[in-house]
Order: sequence, then C-alpha cells, then structure tokens
Amino acid sequence: MAKKIGVAILGLGVVGSGTYKTLVDHHDFYLKTQQVDITVEAVLDKDLTKMKELEIPQDIIAKSIEEVVANPNVDIVVETIGGIGAAKDFVTTALREGKTVVTSNKELICKFSHELERIAKRNHCGLYYEASCVGGVPIIRTLLDGLQANTISEMMGIFNGTTNYVLTKMAQEGKSYEAALKEAQALGFAEADPTNDVEGFDSMFKLSILSSIAFHTKVPYTKISREGITKITETDILFGEKLGYALKLLAIGKNTDKGIEVRVHPTFISNTHPLASVNNSFNAVFVKGDAVGDVMLYGHGAGSLPTASAVVSDVLFAATHTDIKYSTFKNTSTAENNVKFVSDFTSAYYVRIFVEDVTGSLAKISGVFSKCGISICAVSQNGTATDGKIELAVITYKTSENAMKNALAKINNSGFGSVQTVIHIEDEPKA
Amino acid sequence: MAKKIGVAILGLGVVGSGTYKTLVDHHDFYLKTQQVDITVEAVLDKDLTKMKELEIPQDIIAKSIEEVVANPNVDIVVETIGGIGAAKDFVTTALREGKTVVTSNKELICKFSHELERIAKRNHCGLYYEASCVGGVPIIRTLLDGLQANTISEMMGIFNGTTNYVLTKMAQEGKSYEAALKEAQALGFAEADPTNDVEGFDSMFKLSILSSIAFHTKVPYTKISREGITKITETDILFGEKLGYALKLLAIGKNTDKGIEVRVHPTFISNTHPLASVNNSFNAVFVKGDAVGDVMLYGHGAGSLPTASAVVSDVLFAATHTDIKYSTFKNTSTAENNVKFVSDFTSAYYVRIFVEDVTGSLAKISGVFSKCGISICAVSQNGTATDGKIELAVITYKTSENAMKNALAKINNSGFGSVQTVIHIEDEPKA
Repeated sequence: MAKKIGVAILGLGVVGSGTYKTLVDHHDFYLKTQQVDITVEAVLDKDLTKMKELEIPQDIIAKSIEEVVANPNVDIVVETIGGIGAAKDFVTTALREGKTVVTSNKELICKFSHELERIAKRNHCGLYYEASCVGGVPIIRTLLDGLQANTISEMMGIFNGTTNYVLTKMAQEGKSYEAALKEAQALGFAEADPTNDVEGFDSMFKLSILSSIAFHTKVPYTKISREGITKITETDILFGEKLGYALKLLAIGKNTDKGIEVRVHPTFISNTHPLASVNNSFNAVFVKGDAVGDVMLYGHGAGSLPTASAVVSDVLFAATHTDIKYSTFKNTSTAENNVKFVSDFTSAYYVRIFVEDVTGSLAKISGVFSKCGISICAVSQNGTATDGKIELAVITYKTSENAMKNALAKINNSGFGSVQTVIHIEDEPKA
Repeated sequence: MAKKIGVAILGLGVVGSGTYKTLVDHHDFYLKTQQVDITVEAVLDKDLTKMKELEIPQDIIAKSIEEVVANPNVDIVVETIGGIGAAKDFVTTALREGKTVVTSNKELICKFSHELERIAKRNHCGLYYEASCVGGVPIIRTLLDGLQANTISEMMGIFNGTTNYVLTKMAQEGKSYEAALKEAQALGFAEADPTNDVEGFDSMFKLSILSSIAFHTKVPYTKISREGITKITETDILFGEKLGYALKLLAIGKNTDKGIEVRVHPTFISNTHPLASVNNSFNAVFVKGDAVGDVMLYGHGAGSLPTASAVVSDVLFAATHTDIKYSTFKNTSTAENNVKFVSDFTSAYYVRIFVEDVTGSLAKISGVFSKCGISICAVSQNGTATDGKIELAVITYKTSENAMKNALAKINNSGFGSVQTVIHIEDEPKA
C-alpha cells in the first residue's frame, strides 16, 4: 500500500512553480518508484494570476497560512517565498502545528536555523532545506548521508551562477564586467539589482549553511569575510590566464587546528583544479575529507526545475524516512563554546597597481611589500603607459591578510602608486 | 544516549583494512556527530599477519563466519572479501541471521542482488553497497536520496581509475598504451593481470548496478555491450585532441522511448564536457535528470581510505536510519516484464584505417561507407606512408552499430584497407 502524503506550497515564484509542476507531473512515477502517493493539497500565494497560469484547481487554493496548517491532509509544507518576513512567520506557524517543512530559503536557514530547529524538535516534525544551497546539487544530503564517515577539512565552491556566468563571459569573450553583467541580466541570469549576487551575499549565506553542516558546528554568516566581483577587470583575468589561473568567485571554508576560516572572494585557482572548468551558470562544491580525499559535485545552482528537484527530493525523503524527523540538524545550529574562528588568514595574492612611469617605481613598490614582511614571487609590467602611469602586476607568496592590508594602505598613501585590484590565489603562487 | 552498534569486518584486504582504521580512528567523532557508539566486535581473515599489522586485539579475531554471526554484539557485517565465492556464502549466512550487511563487492551485487535482497527482506535486515561503485563517490546515496525526484534519462561515467590513469598518461605524455600500463602497475594503480580493468569488466559491473538504480529496473550485465582500451594508440588520442575531443573509457546508460541502452567503450567526448577534465585515477559520474538537468560527481574511485569512506558511511546510515532496512533496493533487483534493451544503438564514429598508398584508395573507402548507408563527416590522411600504406582517419555522422560492423567487415575483406581502431564519439562529429 502506498503511503498518502499531502503537500502545501507557499509561494508560487520561480521555485514554487517548478515544485508544483514537478510534483504533479511525477505523481505516478513517485507512486511506482517511492511507493508514496503525493498530492498537492494546498497552495498559497497573493498573486492569483499564477494560479491560472499553472491551472491550479480552485479547491486547493488557500486563503491564509492558518487555513493551510488546519488542513488535516497537509503533511508537508513547502516554503518557497524567500526572505525573512512572511516566510519566517509561515514556517514557524507550520512547525508549531507539527507540519514538516521543506524550504529553499537560504537567508531564513542561515539566520534562524537555531530557532526553527528548536520549534521543529519540540513539535516532532522535520525541517529540510537541500534547495537552499546550490540548487539541484544534492550537497546537503551528500554531507549528511554520503560523506559523514569523514572529518571535512576543507570546502570550496562556486555557489553563485550569476557571478560565474559573468566571470566566464569576461574570460572567454574578453567582455568587460559591465557588458557581461548586462548580458546576464538580459538572459535572466542576473536580477535588475544584482547586489546580492555580485557582492557575494548569496554565496555567503550558502557558505554559512554548508560549512555548519560540514564542520558540525554553527558557522554564523557574520564570521565570513566577504568581497564581491565588481572591481574585477578583463585585464586581471587575462593576466591570471597567462600564469595558468582561472578566476572564480569562491566560497571557502577551512577547518584547521587554528580554527574555522570562512571567506567569499574572487580567487585565482590553478586551471587544472576541477573547479576551474566549472563555467557559465554552473555551480560546484569541492570537499576534502580525511578518508575520501577530494570530492566534487557539479550542477545547476539555480533555476525553476533544478531547485524544484532539490525541494521534491527533500519532500520524498521526508515522506519515506519517518524515523529521522529533524535529522538535517546535527550539531549545526548552535556554535560550540570552544570553536575558534580565524580572522587573519594567509593567502598568496595577485595585486595590480598603477605607478608613476619613472625609474625606481618598481623598486619603491617592492620595498613597501618587503617592509610589511611580504615576499614577492614575481612582478611584471603590464601593457603601455596611460597618463604617465604604468601598470604592475605583483604576485606574492603566502602572507597574512593583515600584512597585505597594511601594504596596500601604504602604497595608496605613498603618492607613487594606486592599487587597482587585489585577488587571492588559492594555490602556490606562479611566476 | 548514544546507540551502541557492533561491526564485524570480513576480509582485511585493501578496503577491509581501511574500514577497520577508519572505524577505530573516528570512534569519538562518530559518537559526537552521529550519536552512535560504533565498535569493531569481530574481524575475520585467513591471513593472520594482517591482524598483527593492524594491531587488532586478540579477543575480536574470529575463527569462522558462524562465530561472527553468533556474536550478539555484532549488528552490522561488513564484507570486503570480494568475488563470489566465500563472500557470497558469508553474506548469505549473515543476512539469514538477521545481520545487516554492508559490502564493497561489485561482482556479488551485480550478479546476485536479486537473491540477496530476498534474503534480507525475509530476515528484516539491510543490504548496503555504496562502496561497490566508484569508491568514495557517494553516487548510490545521491541517486536514492538526492536526485530521486527525477526521471534519469542518461548516466555516463568514468568508473575505472586504472584505465583513466593509462589514458591520461597517453594523452598528456604521449606514452604508448604498454608504457602507460607498466607505469600504472609500478604505482599500484593496475594489477599484474589488468584484464578486469582494461577490458572494461570492472566498469561493466558498476554500470549494471548504477543503471539499475537510476532506471528503477534490473539492468543485467549481460545486456551491456563492452569493449576495452587495449587497441587504443597515442595516434588516436592525438587525432581526437586536434578535433577537440578527449578520449575516455566511458560507461554509458541511456533510458529512452526505445528502451535501455547500456555500453562500456573507449569514447571521444568534447573537451568542454565536464567528464573530459577528469584525469589520472579520478572517477566521475555524470547524470541527466528531467528536473535537475546535468549533475556530476567526481572523486577517488578506488583506494583503501576512499572506499572505506563509502563502507563506513553505509554503516553509519544503517546505524542511524532504522526504519529503512532494505531501502537500497527499490525496483532494482528484478527486471520488469516490459523493459526493452536496445542492442543496435546509434553513434558517431572515428575509424582509423591503413590503406594502400595508391590513387583512389580514399574514394574506395568512402564508397564502402556510403554503400553501408553511413555518411562521412570528414576524412583526413594521417602522417606518412609505411610499407606502402597510408593511414586514414574517418569521422562519420551518427549511424547504427550494425551498419558500422558491416562497413568494417567489408573494408577488412576488401584487400585494400585494414581497420586499426574504431572509437565511438559521444557528441556531434567534428570535422
């Protein structure tokens, strides 16, 4: 006998619509392969035109969250509204009524997993959020149930498709940042206000969630050092290519003896690294485990159906695995007392600087780095002089972030140089 | 309170040793992160020197399978013996005694999953085999619990590290097949008798298991068309590179309206395909789902600790998820009556042929293909004449395998040409 499971969907945006379609289209398939008879029992959205577009039957259109949670046929509530306003209230209400919640809401989980988990536990229901991170790529399930034999020392990822699309177009077609972003907006890969993506907030939320799971302790997003891609130029990307680097907006989490180090920033990685060939709007997560070694998962990090794949896989997991109601949280929602976060991490760097085109400029710049305790791996002059200035690209050996900040400030205050771009190198520096 | 779980390990070879070490080294970690107190309660191996090497306590060394299964402290039996002799007897015995089994044995699962599953069901215990396919890469868990919302139309993978190492060395260092194989043997990546790997048997077993799960029906290995890499030369690889192809031994499963199509053979894929940059002994699985689109998992497909990662993750899964004892099998162990298998599939081809160095040879060869209904995309002459012969490389458009077999036989019987290599192209043909 197939188990009957009723689902409610809150919010019929991109992900909610995809979830509705996926559930309806696959009803018979899930009956056959998962032995569950899943039906959508309620749908809630202020925008009634969506209901018409999706041909949603009148009798499952709900008028309020109270109506949804009072419906005894609803076992699982899917939240695809986003943000931390109504979404938070609705999820809280559903959990309080003992409904298992599946959400695609990264900001909600990143900021309130602690509170929501407690409510879920108290009410003996589940809280699942595979779709909150890296779209269709089942990285949360993999960390929880596929790599859980490992202590994870490192996680690096391309968690944002918009920025990866922009950087790919800049690298492959020599486009400027502005032109590539416009193209991404025209194609629907970037929003009209792209701040959330290009400044790294989106990646930051995901890194907080995923590193909490990987490192078995809450990693608050406030501990993540964040930098976007808006200052990157084609020149930087081309220069990196010559040295054998690809430029990616990486989210990086490391768990070492010194503590947990979490950061999001544009990064040069060796072009032989598996992440280097992840292009366009594709995402990927690279994980290092003590037994398994290097593992990478690759796929669509956003989009209606790919994200719906993650939502519905969570729904099916919740529907078929009844004894692990709130197992998605395992030491992830509260920070342990003894966890340290590393703020002054070390990295090799690429620094592009405009200097006066006079004899001795290079020596002066080198002198500043040297005084700050930073060893230079290579310096090269890039292109021709503009306004009496030349462009230097400096590659340093590994140094602390504080030493680098100090050197950059000194150069900018020196009167003979102005720093254009600074990019971390997640690899040995190359000359 | 942590749940107490006792494990027995049968066979202390590469994987068994890694499993023992992983369980012992991570005891406190699993207690903290999984709330299970896992101890190794019994170990069985004829070779007692292994016991000394691993410093296994005398009191857990078992003398027989009967002693292992009679031990009330043993909840889960790990089988890492391999093959279908003792391994099959021991697994059967353990399941009959109601012990959940975790195995890394691809041949056993490929050939006897049907029988073993029935025994597991009857005795209310579980049967897990993540480690049987692609080592540490958690592809089975991903198919079962991360992508289960999708109907999977395609699976392509590099399932064998030995052959991928050999092909990578041939491609990157221009080594001959023989030289690359010797190097792999010296490094321990290939066995003294490499038949199982280089002839594609290993990939075939894995494809049978993984496509059964992906397509929700038993895919017997006898339905898999198989071809190894022994006939590949550096010349072929270089020629493909010029056209923008990488050469990989791919295991391919497709589920289309015509039926299921499963094959293992050397394949040219576009060098922009994510599988193309999977090098050395790394493995990867590429999956196409109807909602999620393209997904790829990448990692170590073999080795002591990577495979132990998969074994122990299964042990932890079995230990923490008690309500899904035999859930690894979902319509995968018996073929449905209405499943069709496609034997005459279509593909584009690369064919390298020695022909007499006389006017009209190219026309004659083209004529044979044409008569067999095969359209040629490009023909090029490769290098200089040897013994009065020249080498032609022919790229065809998509054609049926039977038409190609027919054409190749005609060329070999013609007296003016002899076929050297035939390689499938999993992409549009390129001129």
